Amino acid sequence: MPVFADEVPPSPEKLRAWGLDKGELIDTAVPGFQGAAAAAGLRPDGRVDVGLIAAEQPSPIAGVFTQNKLPAAPVQISRRHLRGKSALAILANSGGANACTGPAGLEACLSTCEHLAQALRCSQELIFPCSTGVIGQLNQLAARINAVIPGLKSRLTPQGLPLAAQAIMTTDAFPKMAQARLNLGGREITVVGMAKGAGMIRPDMATMLAFVLSDVKIDAAGLQKMALRAAQASFNRASVDGDTSTNDTLLFMASGRAANPLLTEEEQARLEAAFTEICQKLAAMIVLDGEGAQHLIVTRIKGAASREQAYQSCYALAHSPLCKTAFYGRDPNWGRFTSTMGALAGRHDYPLEPELMSLYIGPDALVSKGVWQGPEAERRAAAIMGDKIYQLTVDLGLGPHEFWIFTNDLGPDYVRINADYRS
Amino acid sequence: MPVFADEVPPSPEKLRAWGLDKGELIDTAVPGFQGAAAAAGLRPDGRVDVGLIAAEQPSPIAGVFTQNKLPAAPVQISRRHLRGKSALAILANSGGANACTGPAGLEACLSTCEHLAQALRCSQELIFPCSTGVIGQLNQLAARINAVIPGLKSRLTPQGLPLAAQAIMTTDAFPKMAQARLNLGGREITVVGMAKGAGMIRPDMATMLAFVLSDVKIDAAGLQKMALRAAQASFNRASVDGDTSTNDTLLFMASGRAANPLLTEEEQARLEAAFTEICQKLAAMIVLDGEGAQHLIVTRIKGAASREQAYQSCYALAHSPLCKTAFYGRDPNWGRFTSTMGALAGRHDYPLEPELMSLYIGPDALVSKGVWQGPEAERRAAAIMGDKIYQLTVDLGLGPHEFWIFTNDLGPDYVRINADYRS
Repeated sequence: MPVFADEVPPSPEKLRAWGLDKGELIDTAVPGFQGAAAAAGLRPDGRVDVGLIAAEQPSPIAGVFTQNKLPAAPVQISRRHLRGKSALAILANSGGANACTGPAGLEACLSTCEHLAQALRCSQELIFPCSTGVIGQLNQLAARINAVIPGLKSRLTPQGLPLAAQAIMTTDAFPKMAQARLNLGGREITVVGMAKGAGMIRPDMATMLAFVLSDVKIDAAGLQKMALRAAQASFNRASVDGDTSTNDTLLFMASGRAANPLLTEEEQARLEAAFTEICQKLAAMIVLDGEGAQHLIVTRIKGAASREQAYQSCYALAHSPLCKTAFYGRDPNWGRFTSTMGALAGRHDYPLEPELMSLYIGPDALVSKGVWQGPEAERRAAAIMGDKIYQLTVDLGLGPHEFWIFTNDLGPDYVRINADYRS
Repeated sequence: MPVFADEVPPSPEKLRAWGLDKGELIDTAVPGFQGAAAAAGLRPDGRVDVGLIAAEQPSPIAGVFTQNKLPAAPVQISRRHLRGKSALAILANSGGANACTGPAGLEACLSTCEHLAQALRCSQELIFPCSTGVIGQLNQLAARINAVIPGLKSRLTPQGLPLAAQAIMTTDAFPKMAQARLNLGGREITVVGMAKGAGMIRPDMATMLAFVLSDVKIDAAGLQKMALRAAQASFNRASVDGDTSTNDTLLFMASGRAANPLLTEEEQARLEAAFTEICQKLAAMIVLDGEGAQHLIVTRIKGAASREQAYQSCYALAHSPLCKTAFYGRDPNWGRFTSTMGALAGRHDYPLEPELMSLYIGPDALVSKGVWQGPEAERRAAAIMGDKIYQLTVDLGLGPHEFWIFTNDLGPDYVRINADYRS
């Protein structure tokens, strides 16, 4: 259960203003970084499938990885390399997760790190590998990636970051990038983030790769603290289908090229807020691009008797296929939503009082302290459920605890995509 | 977590021999009972929606109810009436769950009990009400049911049990009945069961009504013990979509008309086995008739380090939408299945060793101690996943603990049915 103080989600208005479904490719350069991509043949469709992000010199890195107990080979290696707190490059591929591949997978991953380290003339520990795609197939990963490393290196350019963003896409319908600029200590700081997501998203960083690059000068310890908190306020609140992947990786790199003075506490807070907003944008894009999703729903629990009840109730709503198909059907089927609370409370022996429970779809109550607010309220709720982005709030009326997450709806396209994924 | 000693599931061969998808209506009479049904207008389609099962005289009753913390009004009332351990009638309706309906719902339910008690000239505590349908709408339940009570009473007949089975159907594609005969103490004993199910099925007795009637002579305490164990070996191992309903009710009634002598221990065991098999048939029918389901999958975990890990791993496989869409797509996507084990182990900090894990689809290993068994094994697995009924076994290789459940696949029809349920 993540610990996070600020339980106020971004408002639907703010989320709408972010233009989450545009799939913008951002070619803003981040001083100190270059990017490139290549088609290595890992994907049968011939699209770019290997991305390289390289810093000019070893730079502070922070990382947050999947909690899955079968972490993919690149997660095992990147986790190990993170001990050095310094990175020169991120080497990311789609077209193969290199998970559940045993010793051969580790060997393949290490081989790509070795080849890239040789090309960049650095130690292998400065390379951070990331993979996404089908689990359990190695797909000649090392040979294919190693073959494109010289070309990747020669094509590195400051405008190449969006190429890397495209190279990691799998079932994503659109590329996911976000940026921010802020002034810290008289220096303009640039932050650019990119992510891939779609299916298999749930807390603990499910099949999700995200990279956030900045020219800010900060040490690795400070960066790691901010990365953890930004992840908890964003990716760890993103749920598409309740499964956690073997490969999730969030990496932050800071080139220091802005040469800002040591950050004050106020500046640290502003930088963390910028990181958090970028991660929230990327996480919301991932959920909205959840396989076949039509809606981004901010699910919010208030008034829980314990923090655990708030957290579990939030996920129960967001994972219930009955609730998610009701979201898809734009059906304010409040009986299902409250029944889900009852089922969860029964399993965990949480307190629950129907006559204290209220349910809001958008700003208006559909159920207020156990009482249905009538057909007019239901019509308003149904209209709001037609929106691309809206908030569903259940106030349990029991105590002070809150939690929120991003979820989406479950439509027939989810089934189509996932039933056919490998074929 | 249910406690149940015998972890061997019914084999796919046995399940196939049961003819689970035939939807047989069984008009076998159970001495001491009569049944009837009526169309009270609760269902807009005019189908029969109220069923009555009446005993000739007050009879021992046993009950198992939903663990949902927002139990429907009829569950609250039946639970209360069960304290008397004696019943004269079960009054069951579809077309309205009478859940989340507050004091008005309780009043409506009590009114129907009162009317039926008057008609049958018994005390109200001998009436067991059960409801199923949409949550949160009262739908003039009391007026409509009370209006058909005189007609129901006058049409009671020993051959009327299948009518009651039809009256409780909601999204069920076929009626669900099962029967057994056995000889106890020189007397032939008849057992007939009926159930309704489809969506919202998971352990703890999700939207499921089931009634098992027998002419055996047994006291209520003995019947209750057998009912609990039969439920744990059947309905509490049935998972369609991971949600538990507000209304689940399993009732056993024993008329005693067989006039058998006091049951020996061996006879008790045989009776319990018959009850269990009937409940397993009904539970398997419910899962196979899960909204839009094509397959009944016996999901089995072996070799878990703890009973909790066995139980949770079983449900993780059976509830993961990624696994369930792979079942639908007949895709032996073992990476998804093992990744689901890894995600669960990460969340609960269970032990997990990829190189000890084996995965079987049908009798043959697809992964053996972490090693994929090659394309031929994968082709065999894919062929088995085309079967209507098959077994998926994950052996974690860690310890002696086992668990199994019935689950099904997630196809586009599930989405269609649940997105449109109320409209």
